[in-house]
Amino acid sequence: MFFEEFVEGSEQVTRGRTVTETDVVMFAGLTGAVNPLFLDEEHAKTTSFGKRIAPGLLTLSIITGLTYQLPTGPFGNGFVALLGMTFKTPKPVFIGDTLHATVVVKEKLAPKEGRGRVILVSTGKNQKGETVMEAEGTFLVRVKGGDA
Amino acid sequence: MFFEEFVEGSEQVTRGRTVTETDVVMFAGLTGAVNPLFLDEEHAKTTSFGKRIAPGLLTLSIITGLTYQLPTGPFGNGFVALLGMTFKTPKPVFIGDTLHATVVVKEKLAPKEGRGRVILVSTGKNQKGETVMEAEGTFLVRVKGGDA
Amino acid sequence: MFFEEFVEGSEQVTRGRTVTETDVVMFAGLTGAVNPLFLDEEHAKTTSFGKRIAPGLLTLSIITGLTYQLPTGPFGNGFVALLGMTFKTPKPVFIGDTLHATVVVKEKLAPKEGRGRVILVSTGKNQKGETVMEAEGTFLVRVKGGDA
Amino acid sequence: MFFEEFVEGSEQVTRGRTVTETDVVMFAGLTGAVNPLFLDEEHAKTTSFGKRIAPGLLTLSIITGLTYQLPTGPFGNGFVALLGMTFKTPKPVFIGDTLHATVVVKEKLAPKEGRGRVILVSTGKNQKGETVMEAEGTFLVRVKGGDA
Amino acid sequence: MFFEEFVEGSEQVTRGRTVTETDVVMFAGLTGAVNPLFLDEEHAKTTSFGKRIAPGLLTLSIITGLTYQLPTGPFGNGFVALLGMTFKTPKPVFIGDTLHATVVVKEKLAPKEGRGRVILVSTGKNQKGETVMEAEGTFLVRVKGGDA
Amino acid sequence: MFFEEFVEGSEQVTRGRTVTETDVVMFAGLTGAVNPLFLDEEHAKTTSFGKRIAPGLLTLSIITGLTYQLPTGPFGNGFVALLGMTFKTPKPVFIGDTLHATVVVKEKLAPKEGRGRVILVSTGKNQKGETVMEAEGTFLVRVKGGDA
Repeated sequence: MFFEEFVEGSEQVTRGRTVTETDVVMFAGLTGAVNPLFLDEEHAKTTSFGKRIAPGLLTLSIITGLTYQLPTGPFGNGFVALLGMTFKTPKPVFIGDTLHATVVVKEKLAPKEGRGRVILVSTGKNQKGETVMEAEGTFLVRVKGGDA
Repeated sequence: MFFEEFVEGSEQVTRGRTVTETDVVMFAGLTGAVNPLFLDEEHAKTTSFGKRIAPGLLTLSIITGLTYQLPTGPFGNGFVALLGMTFKTPKPVFIGDTLHATVVVKEKLAPKEGRGRVILVSTGKNQKGETVMEAEGTFLVRVKGGDA
Repeated sequence: MFFEEFVEGSEQVTRGRTVTETDVVMFAGLTGAVNPLFLDEEHAKTTSFGKRIAPGLLTLSIITGLTYQLPTGPFGNGFVALLGMTFKTPKPVFIGDTLHATVVVKEKLAPKEGRGRVILVSTGKNQKGETVMEAEGTFLVRVKGGDA
Repeated sequence: MFFEEFVEGSEQVTRGRTVTETDVVMFAGLTGAVNPLFLDEEHAKTTSFGKRIAPGLLTLSIITGLTYQLPTGPFGNGFVALLGMTFKTPKPVFIGDTLHATVVVKEKLAPKEGRGRVILVSTGKNQKGETVMEAEGTFLVRVKGGDA
Repeated sequence: MFFEEFVEGSEQVTRGRTVTETDVVMFAGLTGAVNPLFLDEEHAKTTSFGKRIAPGLLTLSIITGLTYQLPTGPFGNGFVALLGMTFKTPKPVFIGDTLHATVVVKEKLAPKEGRGRVILVSTGKNQKGETVMEAEGTFLVRVKGGDA
Repeated sequence: MFFEEFVEGSEQVTRGRTVTETDVVMFAGLTGAVNPLFLDEEHAKTTSFGKRIAPGLLTLSIITGLTYQLPTGPFGNGFVALLGMTFKTPKPVFIGDTLHATVVVKEKLAPKEGRGRVILVSTGKNQKGETVMEAEGTFLVRVKGGDA
C-alpha cells in the first residue's frame, strides 16, 4: 500500500491471533521485561489479575503486527517508518486470549518529498469483544514512486 | 518499588542493551510484523535507511524493559500495569546500535484504593548520544500494603 | 483467498526475506536438526561450501511462508491444509542470502464438499537471481462458504 | 554415517518428540507462515479441525530432525546436503501430539566424486500410531574420505 | 554491586520465575540437549517422573539469572565473570513449577588487581518449598574503580 | 546408552558447535541473565574482554548438549537425571567461537534398584584448542531393563 491508496475514514478488520505463553516468555526475554507479573505464576495468583498477564507492549505489538498484515495496511514496500503512537490498555490481556483489531484511517497529512503521513486508529479486542487496546499511530508511507 | 518510593523529578539512567539481529527477527516473528524493512536486507538497501531498521515498537519495548530493570524502577512486586503511553521515534535504530535511557519521574497522581499512577518520561539514546525514542508512560503501582 | 479466486496460470512474485543466523540456529533447535553443517562453522569451513548453509527445509519453509503472505496466496481463512509437496534444492542457501519466489497457480482440481485443491509451483531465488528452490505444493482451499 | 554405512532395506525407528505450542509459534514466526489456522485459536475452533494445527512443514522438519539424530542416520560429518523431497500429510498434527518415524534406506545410488545419494523413506506417526507424514528424501552423503 | 558492597553472611531472597514449556523447548534447542526426557511426553510418561522434566542446567541457569537480578546481586557493571560452580539437583523440576532462591554471601576472597572473588550459595526452591537446586558459585567482581 | 555400556576410562570427542549471538541473546532472555557483559556491546568494549562474552552457564550447557549427542553418551532412553556438576571456566568464550569437548567416563558407581551413576569429565575447548570449560558431572543412568 502506498500513500495514495489509503482512504480517510475507511475501516478494516484484521485477522486474529492468540496470545500464547511462548509470546509472553519470549517477549519478556527479548526486551528484558522481567516483571514477576509476566513471569511468576505464583506471584500473579496473589494479585487482582489472578494469573500472569501479557505485557501491554506485547499486546500493542501484536495489534500492530496484525495491522501490518492487512491487505490494505501500511505494510510492504510502501512502509517507511512508525513515527509515533499513543495507546491505552483499558483491560488486561491474558495468555490464551485471541486478539484482533478494527483499524480506521483517521487522517492523511499532505505528503512532501514523496512521503506522506497516515494516522491509523486501531481498536484491539479480545475474543469476548472487550476492548483491550486503543492505539493511534502515525505511519510514514511512500507516495508511489516516492523515496523509500 | 512501591508508589511511595517514587520521587517526582528524580532522574535515573538505565543500563545499555545492544539491539541484535536476533531481536529484530524474533520480534517480527512473534508479533507478525513481517515488513520487508525489518526482514529483507536487499529491499532495505534501496531505501533511504540503506539497511534494515529495528521496529519502533521493539525499540520502545527495549527502552521500557531497561526501565523495569532500574533498581528504583516500576518493576518488581509493586508493578500492577502499564496503563498507556505516548511515544515518538525521532531517529531510526539499526541492528548493532546500543540503547539506554534516561528516566524521569514526571508526576505522581494521588493514589486511591491502594494504587497510584506514576508518569515516567524515558528518553532513549543510541551509542552516539542521539535521541531515538521519547516516551511518556503511565504505570499503575501499588502503595505499600496496597492491592496488587 | 478462496478457491474461486485462484486463476490457473497466474503468476505472482513474493516479497523477499533475508535468511539470518537466527533463523538457522532457531530452526535447527526447534526441529532437532543438529547437523554440524548448520551449526559448526569450523566444520563447515572444511567442506566444499566453505561456510555454514541453511537447512533445505528452512529454505522451503521461508519460501512457503512468503507464498502465504501473498495478497492472493493460499493464506487467510481460505487455507485448510498443505496436503503435500515435492521440492528440489538446486543450490545451497547461506546465511545472509535474501530469498524471494515466483509463484504460479499450476492447476486447480475440481472441488468437492466445499473444498478444492490448488497446485502452486514456487521457484525460490536468491539475491543473485540463482534458483535455490523448486517446489510444487498441493494446498487444500475452501470454496467460498465451504467448510474450513 | 558415511555412504558405505547405509544398508539398502535397513529400517530404523527414531526417538519421539512432542509438538509444542512453542514449536508452532516459533516456526510460524521464523518462516512468516502467519496463517490463522496456526495462530488463531478462535478461528481454528470454527474449522473441521476444531483447534490449531501444526504447519505441515513443521511436521516434516521435526520428522527429518529425528532422522538426523539416528545413530545410523544421514547426520554428522557425512552429511552434505538434502537434495530434494516428496511428502504427503495424510492426517493433521495437533499441539501436544508426539511424533516419531520409521526410516527405511530405500536406495543407494552409485557414488561419484566421493559422494553418493541415499534415498530415505520416513513414515511419521503420532502417539496413536496414525501416519501423519510420508516423506521420501534424497540426501547427498560423503563416501569415507570423500569431499564434504 | 561492586566487591566492597557484598557482606559476608548476608542473605537475600530472589523473585520467582515459572518454568514454562517454552523455556524447556528453547533451552533444549539452543543447547542441543535433545533428550527424550525433556522433549518426548510419551516417553516421559513411562518414567518414574511421569511427565517431562526441566533440564538441570536450565534450573541452574534460571536460579542464577534470578540471582543476577537481585538489587544487591553480582550483576551490573560490577560483574566480571562466573569462574566456576558446584551444584546438586535434589529433586526434579517440572514444567509449571515456580522457582526462587535464597542467596547467601558465603565468603569474600581478598581482592587483587582491582577484582575480588565472591562465593554465593544459592538454594533454589519450588512453589512447595522443596529444595530443587543447591549451588555454590564463585563470581569475579570488580572493586570500585577496578578493572572490568 | 544404558549403564552397562559405559566403559570406565573410555574417551570420546563430541562434534563442534559455534556459539552465536542468537545463543547469547536467547539464553540471557530465557534465564533472565540480563548482565551488560552479555547484552551491552558498548559496556563490553570498556572491559578487559573487549567485547561481549557468552554466559558461563551457556558454555556449560552447550558442552553438555554435545555430550548428550554422543552416540555413546548418557542420552536417549537410558538417561534418568543429571544429579550434579562441578565446573570451572578457565577462559572466556566469545560470540563466534566454536566449541567441542573431550568426554571421559571417569567412574561408574555400583548400581542399585536398576539405575547407576556415571561420572563424566568433559573438557571443553574452543577452535584454538584452548580449554574453556572443565566439568565433572554425575548422571543417573538406567541399567538395561531398569526403571526410567
